[in-house]
Order: sequence, then C-alpha cells, then structure tokens
Amino acid sequence: MSIAETGEFGLIARIVARLDSGQGALLGPGDDAAVVAAPDGRMVASTDMLVEGRHFRRDWSGAADVGHRAAAANLADIVAMGAQPTALLVGLCVPTDLDVSWAEELAGGLSAEAGLVGASVVGGDMSASATLTVAVTALGDLRGAAPVLRSGAQPGDVVALAGRTGHAAAGYAVLSRGFRTPKAFVEAYRRPQVPYAAGTAAARLGATAMIDVSDGLLQDLGHVATASVVGIDVRREAFTVPEQMRDAASALGVDPYVWVLTGGDDHALVATFPPSVTLPENWRIIGAVHEGTGVTVDRREWQGGMGWDHFR
Amino acid sequence: MSIAETGEFGLIARIVARLDSGQGALLGPGDDAAVVAAPDGRMVASTDMLVEGRHFRRDWSGAADVGHRAAAANLADIVAMGAQPTALLVGLCVPTDLDVSWAEELAGGLSAEAGLVGASVVGGDMSASATLTVAVTALGDLRGAAPVLRSGAQPGDVVALAGRTGHAAAGYAVLSRGFRTPKAFVEAYRRPQVPYAAGTAAARLGATAMIDVSDGLLQDLGHVATASVVGIDVRREAFTVPEQMRDAASALGVDPYVWVLTGGDDHALVATFPPSVTLPENWRIIGAVHEGTGVTVDRREWQGGMGWDHFR
Repeated sequence: MSIAETGEFGLIARIVARLDSGQGALLGPGDDAAVVAAPDGRMVASTDMLVEGRHFRRDWSGAADVGHRAAAANLADIVAMGAQPTALLVGLCVPTDLDVSWAEELAGGLSAEAGLVGASVVGGDMSASATLTVAVTALGDLRGAAPVLRSGAQPGDVVALAGRTGHAAAGYAVLSRGFRTPKAFVEAYRRPQVPYAAGTAAARLGATAMIDVSDGLLQDLGHVATASVVGIDVRREAFTVPEQMRDAASALGVDPYVWVLTGGDDHALVATFPPSVTLPENWRIIGAVHEGTGVTVDRREWQGGMGWDHFR
Repeated sequence: MSIAETGEFGLIARIVARLDSGQGALLGPGDDAAVVAAPDGRMVASTDMLVEGRHFRRDWSGAADVGHRAAAANLADIVAMGAQPTALLVGLCVPTDLDVSWAEELAGGLSAEAGLVGASVVGGDMSASATLTVAVTALGDLRGAAPVLRSGAQPGDVVALAGRTGHAAAGYAVLSRGFRTPKAFVEAYRRPQVPYAAGTAAARLGATAMIDVSDGLLQDLGHVATASVVGIDVRREAFTVPEQMRDAASALGVDPYVWVLTGGDDHALVATFPPSVTLPENWRIIGAVHEGTGVTVDRREWQGGMGWDHFR
C-alpha cells in the first residue's frame, strides 16, 4: 500500500504503532508537542538529517537499517556531550508512492536503536517530498554533570578512542563497487555500533573534550583542535587494521588507513583526558594534545582528505 | 556565491553569524549538541518541516519569509501546549547551487521569529539535497503548569479562538491564480502572525484543551473532538469575514468561509474553556463542546473538505 492511499493521518497511526515508549517520555506522539523529562534542569539537543542518495541508498540499506543509522547518528551526538539520551523527534519526508511498509520499518529501526539507550521516539512530522529525507532531533539529560565540549582539550592530554573507525567507510567502498561482502563492513555501514556507554563514562572520568566521529577521525579531531586552540597528533601505530579490512583495501587498491583515519559514519567517540587518568579498556589511546594548531599523523601533515564535506 | 563554493563549514559559519542568542541557550551552535535551560524539569518538544513546492515556493516567498514561517509553525505548537518556547534546532537540506544569501536570510528570519518569544536557534544540521527542505524542532518550558492537551475538552465547554483564520488561505489562493494582491493576505501567507502570548495565557485561564490551527480550523478541532471523545459545534456567525476577504473571495468565485473554516497556515490557537471562565478580549468564542462526536457547523455536517492532508 502506498502512502498516497493511507493519507497523512493513516500513516502516522501506523508508524506510532511501531514505537516503544521510554521512561523519559512524559507525553508521547499525538499532541501538538511531546513532553520529555528533564530532571537535570538542562536539556542537551542535537539534530541530524539523512538524505536519500547522499546518506543512504534504498538498494544498499533496508528501511530498518536507515532507522537504526538515523537514530545512532543523533544519539551519538548526545553521548558525545557526556549526556544520557532520552528522546527522539523524527521528521520524515517521503515520496507519495513509497510503500507504507518502508516507513513502518524505518520507525521500527529508529525505535529499536533508541531503545538501546532507554530513549524513545516521542514525536515527529511527516510530509510528502520528491526526496526521501529523515530528520532526527535527539534530546538528552546531563544527570548533573558538566557537558563535555570540543573546546576543553589541554596540551599534555592524551587522545583516546572508543569504538571503531573505518568499518563503515570500508562497507561504503565495497558497496560502491557493486559488492555485498565482506558482510562485516557492509553491516557496519548499514548500522553503526556506537559505544554509547563510553560517552557518559568519559564524562565521569574527567574527559576534557569529546566529539563523535561522524565525518572522519582527522576532520573531527580538527574541530577539537580548533575549538580548544591546540594541536593534536595521532599515532598511526595505535591503529591495528583488521586482516579482513586489509584484504578488502588491497582488493580495491586503496590504503586502509584512509578508511581508518578519514572514514565517517561509524560514530566512534574520541575524547581527550588528562594524562593521569586511568582509562578503562574500551578507551584506547591513539595520540596526544600539544601546544600548536591542527591535526597531524606521526607528527606529519596527513596527505589526502580529512573527511567528509556534505557539499563537495 | 553558491553553497558548493563555501562548503559545509563555511556555510555554517555564515549562518551562525546571523543568529541571535536567547537566554535559554546555555550552549549554542558549534558543538556536538546544544544545551538548553529546562528549569521546569520537563521539556516540551515538537518538530515540523517545510518542503519546497509543498509548503513554500521561492517565487512566492523570500528566504526570510520562509524562515519566519518555519519558526512560527513550530513555535505555535509549543505555545499550543501552554508552554514558553525556548529554543529551535534547524535542519536544512539545500541544492548545492543555492545562493548562500538565501540560507543566510532564512537564518535571519528563523532567528527574528524566535526572538519574538525570547527563544533562539541553538543548533542545526545541513545537507545537500535536490529538494530544499527546512526541518525545525522547537523546545519549550512549561513553567510549572500542566501541559494543555487535545484530550481535555468537556461537554459544556466553550470553544474559543485567538488569532486569525483564512488569511493565509486567501493569500495562497490569490498567489495560486498569479496575483500578488491583496497584500494583506499575501503577507499573511508569507509570515503568519501567531498569537504567542495567548497560549500561555490560556493555560493560566484553565483551558481544558488547545491546538494550533495549522491544517484548517475544522480539521484541527476534529483532532480535539477525537482526542477528547466529544462533539464540537462551531457557529458560523461567530466569524466576521473582513470586507477585503469577501471581495477577494468573490473575485475568485469561492466561498470565503471555506478559507476561514478550513484554511491552514495562520497558526491561530483554538482552545476549550469551562463556561465559567471570563476570557480576555483576544479569545473569541466560536462554538461549544457537547456530548457526541465530530465537528459540525451550526449543528450541521460541513459540506466540503475539512482541511489539509499532506499526502493527498
């Protein structure tokens, strides 16, 4: 059945039926606005869009995958502030000939990903459009902690990474060449595995700066370096390229470190910590902060792109 | 200069320069997420999209107009809960050949409209897209009051309206026929005049239900009737059609009451109140709540459409 047949309100009813309710949702979908608990007295909020043809392709990702990814991209921004995600709002622009099941499965993916952190979809909006677009806003609670900004890195701090980089880029690369394997990378591209718990843990450990790696590690560290007015050096040897990734890169004739250092969409977290902090196992030291500007790899300028620009 | 020339980050910098800061913005644009004050401990949140060709046309509205309208549509949802708007987040999908000035003027319009209620744009996202789309999320504070839902209308309540209906529909109608006048209606379509203060006032006066008129008065009252499990009757004589609207309708060969009763986009507020409440002048009684279901006009079924469905 197409969306033109169900109409706006029929579609909304079908989508709402796919959503789970989270404990932060004091009032869920169905009114002019939702009401979300903000026990801290401050609310962390971020918005991020996925546009068909730019951020996803329907022949590469299922609707549930797109839902998972759209939610993950936004939830990662919340945890990168050291906050606990509580709610999502979803704007959905769809072609009128889209099958209703696609929108329902998208909602299921969004709701399931939000459920991983105890959050839920509390509201949204829907419109017809020639371009399938998913606009998500995520809200989160700081639980009494100070937000971890991009601007707090200090010379002498260590730079540490939680989660993976390069996996989604490898998946994107193989899909771009018409392959469907290695499955691990294709799956990583379809549904990022965000180290959600590492974000609030980093805040408690005293992270001085944090960002989620959405556009590429070097580019996102560049935002930290600029905001903190410091230089950051990344050590290439801190990254072990998995054999499967090495093989895939070799088959495609590319340097796997380009994926690892500049690939986006895995939504790892990268943070800076005072050198005295003992980091738990899921935070791996990959570099250091020094006086200066910019991001280097093994103290040299990186030859090649830094990451993704959505307009170039 | 086109957006392809400035790039994503260049454009973001230009847009942020157009934004004013509100007092609820504890941390504005530039980090992974914004931080907004939520002194009430609850946050009201709503999202709404404008899609080019569906919700606006660039030859009918300037960029600043679109910004005003996008903000107004979302802020109206917040005040329709009886809450005070505090912040907007804006997702912007733009064709790469769009002139940068369009995006800058849009940001100016969004910021200026938010400023009318002391709110500000605290964050956003940007992507290239074939379809120009503005996705706005609005946040608001309840200031200790209970949210005014759609579901609280009681038989015996009066139905009252704050703000205008039919003006934007008249503007849309004349623009659709290739006219640019009457200017008052064209301007009403371009920039709705939302009775913001009436929303929180209604909550304090004890409104039992409230909704903003975005899709058409009868249709939006239908949502209240359904949610409250009541019937609502609207009195046609409660509406005085301005002479200029009567003339425009006559020139176009339409019934002006179709505009007034089913036209959207003015973002008036309609609420139900116990009959004992003395309403201030800006709330005009237009009907009554009774036991039953559905919405009638002068106790009869309305002949014609109820309002707007975004997929039909």
